Amino acid sequence: MALRLDMTVSLDGYVTGPHDSPDGPLGVGGFRLFDWLDRRLDPGPAGEVYAEAMATRAVLSGRRTYEHAGRWGGDHHDGVPIVVLTHAVPDDPAPGSVEYATDPREAAARARAAAGDGDVAVMGAGAGQALLRIGELDEIELHVVPVLLGQGRRLFGDLPGHVELEFVRRLGSPPTEDLRRRATHLRYRVRR
Amino acid sequence: MALRLDMTVSLDGYVTGPHDSPDGPLGVGGFRLFDWLDRRLDPGPAGEVYAEAMATRAVLSGRRTYEHAGRWGGDHHDGVPIVVLTHAVPDDPAPGSVEYATDPREAAARARAAAGDGDVAVMGAGAGQALLRIGELDEIELHVVPVLLGQGRRLFGDLPGHVELEFVRRLGSPPTEDLRRRATHLRYRVRR
Repeated sequence: MALRLDMTVSLDGYVTGPHDSPDGPLGVGGFRLFDWLDRRLDPGPAGEVYAEAMATRAVLSGRRTYEHAGRWGGDHHDGVPIVVLTHAVPDDPAPGSVEYATDPREAAARARAAAGDGDVAVMGAGAGQALLRIGELDEIELHVVPVLLGQGRRLFGDLPGHVELEFVRRLGSPPTEDLRRRATHLRYRVRR
Repeated sequence: MALRLDMTVSLDGYVTGPHDSPDGPLGVGGFRLFDWLDRRLDPGPAGEVYAEAMATRAVLSGRRTYEHAGRWGGDHHDGVPIVVLTHAVPDDPAPGSVEYATDPREAAARARAAAGDGDVAVMGAGAGQALLRIGELDEIELHVVPVLLGQGRRLFGDLPGHVELEFVRRLGSPPTEDLRRRATHLRYRVRR
């Protein structure tokens, strides 16, 4: 059971290009980041890490990611519970398997409970940083893409201090893949 | 012949901790980044990438890195030419094989000429960004260390636009290494 941040980033650490919005959730040029997902159903590393994400038993998402993804129509995958961390709960009813939480600890506790003995997929830079700050993030999986976006939304912001990690795993696109599409999948455990 | 930025970074993209200075060039906690260099003379990946850096035939450094390193006593390795990119040339004579340049294009041209058919090691976040902006950086080699520094000096700042990369190589510490010391060495080519 792990709360695992799962994010695709440029080599310079951006998760979107500039000017991200609900109409352009990845910002200018940011769609480039998701090239590797074209291989998500192939047997290689992309398929492996995608299958792991789809095997999580709950989702904990930041509000921005949730809205920019069209609230996933209320179902991220397989109808698993989706806990959305937000400053202000929306007035309209939560769709599908979504529930809202305004406190990061509460969000983490609810997602853990919902996932049972499964893992939780944490999505969004804001949610990841909030969980890191309160010591509730267990793992980090980054899909590092060969591009410098130069501007946009950064995955990691300021933290009050160091966070030690332990290396878990390193996977890479196969040598047959185009050089511009060779993502590197890095997994780390957060030390407490 | 490549101008290759060679930098050690935390997973969140910092090259120093906070408050870096000549007295504490890596900032608070930043020395953690260089754990992997303990293995620089071993036959594994750390030894391989270190040997490559030491085989470069010139150095192009930013001024801050140069000063914080005590000007390397005028000799970074094997007496190769060191071109220091600076806004203002110091009054005192340049030590050893150091020369100063105030323009990034001039610095790049001089370093390339000095290296002949060898590579140039580019050092410092500022120098790397300056060369990226004018399209004079050829390669990027990052040594990614399992830690989030949370604050400090970032390797990559804002760029005017995207820079496309091509994957070149991925090396990792051997499985015998402590999990906190497992660096990942990533090399990319900058597309023009």
